[in-house]
Amino acid sequence: MKRYLMTPGPTPVPEQVVLSMSTPIIHHRTDEFKGIFKETADLAKRVMQTKNDVVMFSSSGSGAMEAAVSNVLSEGDKAITVSAGKFGERWGKIVKAFGAEAVELTYDYGDYAKVEDIENALKNNKNIKAVYIQASETSTGTFHPIDEIGLMLKEKYPEALFIVDGITAYGAIDVKTDNWNIDIGITGSQKALMLPPGLALLSVSEKAKDVIERNKNRFFYFDILGEIDAKAGKFTPAVSLVIGLNTSLKMILDEGLDNVFKRHEILAKATQEAVVALGLELLSKKPANSLTAVKSPQNISSEDIIAKMKEFGVEISNGQGHLKGKIFRIAHLGYFYKPDILMCISVLEMALKKLGYSANFGDGTKRAMEIFLDE
Amino acid sequence: MKRYLMTPGPTPVPEQVVLSMSTPIIHHRTDEFKGIFKETADLAKRVMQTKNDVVMFSSSGSGAMEAAVSNVLSEGDKAITVSAGKFGERWGKIVKAFGAEAVELTYDYGDYAKVEDIENALKNNKNIKAVYIQASETSTGTFHPIDEIGLMLKEKYPEALFIVDGITAYGAIDVKTDNWNIDIGITGSQKALMLPPGLALLSVSEKAKDVIERNKNRFFYFDILGEIDAKAGKFTPAVSLVIGLNTSLKMILDEGLDNVFKRHEILAKATQEAVVALGLELLSKKPANSLTAVKSPQNISSEDIIAKMKEFGVEISNGQGHLKGKIFRIAHLGYFYKPDILMCISVLEMALKKLGYSANFGDGTKRAMEIFLDE
Repeated sequence: MKRYLMTPGPTPVPEQVVLSMSTPIIHHRTDEFKGIFKETADLAKRVMQTKNDVVMFSSSGSGAMEAAVSNVLSEGDKAITVSAGKFGERWGKIVKAFGAEAVELTYDYGDYAKVEDIENALKNNKNIKAVYIQASETSTGTFHPIDEIGLMLKEKYPEALFIVDGITAYGAIDVKTDNWNIDIGITGSQKALMLPPGLALLSVSEKAKDVIERNKNRFFYFDILGEIDAKAGKFTPAVSLVIGLNTSLKMILDEGLDNVFKRHEILAKATQEAVVALGLELLSKKPANSLTAVKSPQNISSEDIIAKMKEFGVEISNGQGHLKGKIFRIAHLGYFYKPDILMCISVLEMALKKLGYSANFGDGTKRAMEIFLDE
Repeated sequence: MKRYLMTPGPTPVPEQVVLSMSTPIIHHRTDEFKGIFKETADLAKRVMQTKNDVVMFSSSGSGAMEAAVSNVLSEGDKAITVSAGKFGERWGKIVKAFGAEAVELTYDYGDYAKVEDIENALKNNKNIKAVYIQASETSTGTFHPIDEIGLMLKEKYPEALFIVDGITAYGAIDVKTDNWNIDIGITGSQKALMLPPGLALLSVSEKAKDVIERNKNRFFYFDILGEIDAKAGKFTPAVSLVIGLNTSLKMILDEGLDNVFKRHEILAKATQEAVVALGLELLSKKPANSLTAVKSPQNISSEDIIAKMKEFGVEISNGQGHLKGKIFRIAHLGYFYKPDILMCISVLEMALKKLGYSANFGDGTKRAMEIFLDE
């Protein structure tokens, strides 16, 4: 059975990337690898649109999230965490795990953060050291307006660090790290960077470095300043993933950042409009261009839709937390192009029909085709 | 740009096959390789449904076609060649190149051979040594009724050899080599066997061996009996292709021959019905399950359709000979599953619309979805 992976991470790995990772492994303490590592970090800066240092951890994205807490917050420090899904909740959990206080700004799953809410929270809570948020909340496919939030912080609360989990955003959505005042931006290898899981990236501003230097919390492995000093990994870096990242970042830059973002925008639009044409409802009030979360029709569990699509070889994702069984998520970040979306929507339509939902049969794919023809 | 290869050879190579071909190369005169070679030939016999010897040439399929002429026909010998497309014509050319006489039975491109025509040709021409035909004529996507022809020959002209080019048939269409009296059956690696080009397979009956032994023509490289004697290649075999073939044949047998044929049948049916639903016409009077040849709508060159589909990353094939620009060919033999067809038909629809043909927009993909849901 041929597999068609449409999950929001891992995402398909391009053949060129696989090939580059399959070259003979080299030792990480050689000039050759140091050169590759430095070049890769520089390429990552360009994709992350920052002049700040970018460090790489051999970990999942959550490892970099932990670093962004443990390195920044001392015990008793106060931070705002925006929670509108599973990954927003994770910020709260990590902050508490490190003995700091989380002022949690909670939204319904599918809703997005309002800049005024964050401003009010900062007004009502003194000494907020950092604001933690997602650019794209992967559990709901929602984009938080981090551009507005970042600029508000810069203007009104310049002492607070702005820390953004961009794991399903960087490389898919136009996240302007420096222009949007992001002190720490985070991403993972297995999303729009088109790699297997195992590598996390973290950009860190000079302002953040100052805070980290004065911080007293406990950490050892996830040592941001230590990684910057070490040049090519404080600990053994994931050599083949770094080499693969070098290839995939070059692919992204060769296609052109604007073209990559535009591609994701069109794939997202086609997916969103296709499911709406089928009479389905989007979960998100502000859908992200990286993945689309769709409410399952009444009386049909999203688990059944996912299982039926799997019979055709197409793998999409379930909801998380209390949305399990209630929504399904289609990814279109990374190595995806128009034919992939057309295929996925057709297979979704067949799965729905098999489960007794036959409204507007054929209209989803047709709508996606129309969107693609329009541009 | 991601590529979606839908051409009738080469066809996509499964990851498992690529991986097996990427293992360290071994020397061909070792017991290890001899074992792999023998096992592969045995697997090929099962896929080709024969107890006859199967030899492998490092060549394109045309090399095996040449072998089936040069080894069988002496100068001045007479053979019937069935010509209803570019590859049927090739039989005539090869027969003449080796100084034998070709009684060419010619049909229009898209038409198929009639068993009575072949019977009449045998009646009207004495001493026909062999009948050369395609199982599936790749240039027109047509299936010749080689089952009927084979059984007629067995009953009425048992002295004539029945030689079938099954290059786009074996592994996609249920070709029963032994039951259908096929003395020499031929296929190539880059079709339903899901490999890169470079390997040709040829099955040879005991009756054919007797004829070859008495034959006086000139050949050196394409030496069928020499290959049988040599056990693991008279000349250096294409080691990695043989190893890849071992993997792909196991994939086919693991899926089950009947399942593989049924899959090809359904993909073919969906493709045929989808293009008809779009108001297009099939070229073939007896479409093969391996590829579908479609007449381009009036005033639209198939070259333009192909170019427009290529803009979306999908690669299909043009017509050959005088049909260039007039037809296009969509492959569905080998590593293809339902999502691939849905994707291809959607992209075809978008290409047609871009070229001003908008009849029944959306109906093609919808029809393919219906076919897939029906079974």
